[in-house]
Amino acid sequence: MLKVAICGGSGYAGSELLRLLSLHREVKITAVTSERSSGRKVVELFPHLMGSLDLEFEPLRPEILLKKADLFFMSLPHAASQEAVNFFYSRKKHVVDLSADFRLKDPAVYEEWYSTRHEYPSVLKKAVYGLPEIYRRNIKKTRVVANPGCYPTGALLGLYPALKEGLIEAGSIVIDSKSGTSGAGRKAAIPYSFCEVNESFRAYGIATHRHTPEIEQELSIIHGTQVTINFTPHLLPVNRGILTTIYCRLKGDASTGHLLERYRDIYRKEPFVRVYDEGNLPDVRNVRGTNFCDIGMKVNQRTGTLVVVTAIDNLLKGASGQAIQNMNIMMGFKETEGLNLLAPLP
Amino acid sequence: MLKVAICGGSGYAGSELLRLLSLHREVKITAVTSERSSGRKVVELFPHLMGSLDLEFEPLRPEILLKKADLFFMSLPHAASQEAVNFFYSRKKHVVDLSADFRLKDPAVYEEWYSTRHEYPSVLKKAVYGLPEIYRRNIKKTRVVANPGCYPTGALLGLYPALKEGLIEAGSIVIDSKSGTSGAGRKAAIPYSFCEVNESFRAYGIATHRHTPEIEQELSIIHGTQVTINFTPHLLPVNRGILTTIYCRLKGDASTGHLLERYRDIYRKEPFVRVYDEGNLPDVRNVRGTNFCDIGMKVNQRTGTLVVVTAIDNLLKGASGQAIQNMNIMMGFKETEGLNLLAPLP
Amino acid sequence: MLKVAICGGSGYAGSELLRLLSLHREVKITAVTSERSSGRKVVELFPHLMGSLDLEFEPLRPEILLKKADLFFMSLPHAASQEAVNFFYSRKKHVVDLSADFRLKDPAVYEEWYSTRHEYPSVLKKAVYGLPEIYRRNIKKTRVVANPGCYPTGALLGLYPALKEGLIEAGSIVIDSKSGTSGAGRKAAIPYSFCEVNESFRAYGIATHRHTPEIEQELSIIHGTQVTINFTPHLLPVNRGILTTIYCRLKGDASTGHLLERYRDIYRKEPFVRVYDEGNLPDVRNVRGTNFCDIGMKVNQRTGTLVVVTAIDNLLKGASGQAIQNMNIMMGFKETEGLNLLAPLP
Amino acid sequence: MLKVAICGGSGYAGSELLRLLSLHREVKITAVTSERSSGRKVVELFPHLMGSLDLEFEPLRPEILLKKADLFFMSLPHAASQEAVNFFYSRKKHVVDLSADFRLKDPAVYEEWYSTRHEYPSVLKKAVYGLPEIYRRNIKKTRVVANPGCYPTGALLGLYPALKEGLIEAGSIVIDSKSGTSGAGRKAAIPYSFCEVNESFRAYGIATHRHTPEIEQELSIIHGTQVTINFTPHLLPVNRGILTTIYCRLKGDASTGHLLERYRDIYRKEPFVRVYDEGNLPDVRNVRGTNFCDIGMKVNQRTGTLVVVTAIDNLLKGASGQAIQNMNIMMGFKETEGLNLLAPLP
Repeated sequence: MLKVAICGGSGYAGSELLRLLSLHREVKITAVTSERSSGRKVVELFPHLMGSLDLEFEPLRPEILLKKADLFFMSLPHAASQEAVNFFYSRKKHVVDLSADFRLKDPAVYEEWYSTRHEYPSVLKKAVYGLPEIYRRNIKKTRVVANPGCYPTGALLGLYPALKEGLIEAGSIVIDSKSGTSGAGRKAAIPYSFCEVNESFRAYGIATHRHTPEIEQELSIIHGTQVTINFTPHLLPVNRGILTTIYCRLKGDASTGHLLERYRDIYRKEPFVRVYDEGNLPDVRNVRGTNFCDIGMKVNQRTGTLVVVTAIDNLLKGASGQAIQNMNIMMGFKETEGLNLLAPLP
Repeated sequence: MLKVAICGGSGYAGSELLRLLSLHREVKITAVTSERSSGRKVVELFPHLMGSLDLEFEPLRPEILLKKADLFFMSLPHAASQEAVNFFYSRKKHVVDLSADFRLKDPAVYEEWYSTRHEYPSVLKKAVYGLPEIYRRNIKKTRVVANPGCYPTGALLGLYPALKEGLIEAGSIVIDSKSGTSGAGRKAAIPYSFCEVNESFRAYGIATHRHTPEIEQELSIIHGTQVTINFTPHLLPVNRGILTTIYCRLKGDASTGHLLERYRDIYRKEPFVRVYDEGNLPDVRNVRGTNFCDIGMKVNQRTGTLVVVTAIDNLLKGASGQAIQNMNIMMGFKETEGLNLLAPLP
Repeated sequence: MLKVAICGGSGYAGSELLRLLSLHREVKITAVTSERSSGRKVVELFPHLMGSLDLEFEPLRPEILLKKADLFFMSLPHAASQEAVNFFYSRKKHVVDLSADFRLKDPAVYEEWYSTRHEYPSVLKKAVYGLPEIYRRNIKKTRVVANPGCYPTGALLGLYPALKEGLIEAGSIVIDSKSGTSGAGRKAAIPYSFCEVNESFRAYGIATHRHTPEIEQELSIIHGTQVTINFTPHLLPVNRGILTTIYCRLKGDASTGHLLERYRDIYRKEPFVRVYDEGNLPDVRNVRGTNFCDIGMKVNQRTGTLVVVTAIDNLLKGASGQAIQNMNIMMGFKETEGLNLLAPLP
Repeated sequence: MLKVAICGGSGYAGSELLRLLSLHREVKITAVTSERSSGRKVVELFPHLMGSLDLEFEPLRPEILLKKADLFFMSLPHAASQEAVNFFYSRKKHVVDLSADFRLKDPAVYEEWYSTRHEYPSVLKKAVYGLPEIYRRNIKKTRVVANPGCYPTGALLGLYPALKEGLIEAGSIVIDSKSGTSGAGRKAAIPYSFCEVNESFRAYGIATHRHTPEIEQELSIIHGTQVTINFTPHLLPVNRGILTTIYCRLKGDASTGHLLERYRDIYRKEPFVRVYDEGNLPDVRNVRGTNFCDIGMKVNQRTGTLVVVTAIDNLLKGASGQAIQNMNIMMGFKETEGLNLLAPLP
């Protein structure tokens, strides 16, 4: 059994790691940290885990944790994550970092969008962007994975085949995303209180959201030259799920059926990508509680536009599920172990 | 135009007072206070009021407010309210207090349940419990009204006719209430954040909720001797509304139809009580955004039990709406002025 | 008092007309029709209206209705509406048609998108598209108003100033809309049942929604030449509200502040359009239960794109509220009569 | 691998059986029936199961099904279920019946509450009421299990220890239950449409709900003499979960701690019952998507009343989960196989 520790376990990504890993057959959770809840039992904070875990939160003391585990999930605020990743990585441990600290290849871009200097550019160079559908080979060989952001995961999986195959114009991309409220984290703040979110819907961070450079970096790599995008996130009054609606101009004539075929081809062996039949479209509820990315699309012949729709669970494929998928790949476990999940509908 | 001020205007009861009073034809809002938001425009906090109000929050400085208004709505935390009510009342102003500070006649009971001494027992003696269906005559003659709690309003209107007419046994009452989340106020706290309340349902404060002595005081007055009750509140994942299900043993044989007749009789002239026909039951959505208390019932012949169900909007009939109704009565305005509202369904 | 009748009053647009008109000081509702609920009291279907209305649903018998009212609101399915509108209009009555039957100027376009022939092209020529912010003068002079669709209202008010002033490229418009579920009407269908919509989110009708030609017609009139758009509607798990996110390429350099100024200028005298300050964005909850269209925006300087966000209540400004606004204009009433509403938050 | 068939697989209980059984390591689903969806692929109706199942719905033809499976889950309307259960049972198959047809021991009581004659009293005599916490031994030995109703499961597990140990008065019981909307089934009906349920809350079927005799039968068996109860169900605007609040008079003095100890004692070895610590209360969200019944309680010393609160997922412990638990027991599988589930919070 692989011993794993979770650094930053009192948020939603953390509690999902606890839940999923407690059912994973190849690992044992040996430590979970939280500064604020240090000394409290996990089930005090998370009564839904009662009966499955007998752990206490402890403070993040790297030297002590070092002896407890061989793989570390980092679910810390950015900047704080940098340091901890460097610590464990440089001591020969495996790390999956759920923060944004090792996603942007260029430290200057990181500093521009996160207003923080990157102190470990050499580790940054080793880090692999953990989107298995694109980087599985590299993930297998690394000890440090930068787990993708939730919005980028849904956007990139929706654009990858079309852009890679040169079917769309890279300069025309509009990404309109709608995320469930757990994406904002587990926190006390009036704008995320029940009465403020329920029966509401709004856009936020237009043109300024920090996932923008992450999406652009990866699209640029796929495309070969610099891509800029219009990205608008919205806050949905549901607990989980991101639906992303993507608009891009088609280079030539192409039917919906033809596009779907290309996507199906490229994702044929992927255990967590499901391409829908023509006429069907994804719904966040179909992926809730699962590690799937569902993809549907429609060509608008009147305007020459491809409209792709993707759905993920922001806490699974958008965070903790993908983190476990990355661990499975790194450690040579079965890629679907612990992630064999179907949405509990309704 | 009557000049009114709202002390404590940055919560939900306060924002509803602002909304409803800005449409009231007999009053003008001249001041609204908030310590935390002092200096900010009302519409910054409450963009839904844009275009209807051009006020700024100010700190609660009694001497200054005194000159600005003739009637004061107090929407302050308990204890803080005591002092402000006393200040304005003793300077000949009219006051409607939405806090619990002047509801309990016995200062010792107040101190027991609220862990605070009552410093103004002489004002307490003057205060009228503002349930117009029972105390309209007294409200007309007072200058200080203790606006009832939300749970008590729904419970008392559901029990008043049956208890007053001696149809039920007073020792058997179970009051099972379910409240929308705005009842918890506008605040930053993880347990009231969207993801914690949405798709959840739970009881809280069993046998210990502070509205218990308030309900018992009023039932005891109606009944003539001391009444104790079982009261359990629950938290509903809706913004507004309280549904209260009341169980009490019938003294003799009585049909649902007979009971309904008694209720209809007693509430015949009430503008804000609607008694349902046999076979129909209230729903919180039918009273949302209105000052109505809807009442339905069913006699369980197999067990000799009367089951009464009432529905109110906790922010209207359970708080700000009833406060305005009380103002209308005190000031001799038409009782329904500013409250001529129907639920915007769906 | 103007006598008004509602043809098709058992849906959500109908029940909102009943609610709002029962509080309108210049009109009296004299008849309401429903084939399925004929003979039942309105309050049986809509208990939230208890106490405010004492009407029964009757079947739509034009000859009988003719004597009962002088203005008719049509809330019927398309095709059925055509005939009824023609009947009342040709008998000198005033008509506000909430269906799509008289919105598209070109009968061929109507037939293409609605698969129904238009039988009354001469009435169609007289009909004015009832968007008061653009066509107020014409509405004043007509007897037949085609009340705009819900999506077109939000899209057109968001694009009108920018397109009219030549600030954006007409060939680049993406309209991504999200509508509350009441937009689908009051109907028994599994896909709209609570468990299927709650905690879900999905796109539908990509590139094929019937509001597309309506939006394109009006944009083309504003622009002077033919405009085609990409329009995607989504289904939101809220009762009411449409948020529309619009992307369009700016012709030159322009700041958010400059754009906002142009919008504010054009909508300065509009009682139901609220333009937000820079940094603020609309939320459907701020317009719920009101006739407002709230507008915010942001220029993405990196991509040269203007992103406009609008919010309306689909049942008010998107249907019944705008219908009453149109009636008020046609009949010379105060334009805001019966529509002096603020959102009951939360 | 045990071959199992699901009769009536297009509802919510059916789709949960499909989902959970497709992940169960001891069984293989060989057939699933639906009259209305016959010939359609399961994933057409339930896209969330895409990738996990390659089955088509077939009509319920008993002779054909007989050869396909050895254990049958019946998720049919009552009356229809009777016949199918008899057919498979009398042909030596194992049956778990999710309908109400074999729950009531007395055919006369069944006929009174279900308005249907019971045609198979001899099979009825063999049927075991499938509440494993009480009847595990009998379940092991039978071939036909009557799976309990959702409300009875939550009510009985909450009352069993207190009643069995003689701690409460049997004549005083009030059961106030609140159920998520999936309890009403997957159906097209206006009262269960999104806009009618969202932001609503109401009681229904007071004193007349069909689960009343089922609860009374089992309480009477535990108590030794006839028990009648007051039972009121309510409809919650959540997809899943039943919270039941139970009031009963204590026979003597007893603290909350003492009661909890008795409950913990009796449920010590139960894999699916979790008794909360004093001060904590269940929430439906903690059991969502799981087979747990969570139990908390509080003694109201002022009134001598015990208040018990239980939470289950109506589709799991209240239906399909418990059905699989019963199958596991009958067939000698590990009781928790396929049910090792934790709530995906939030």
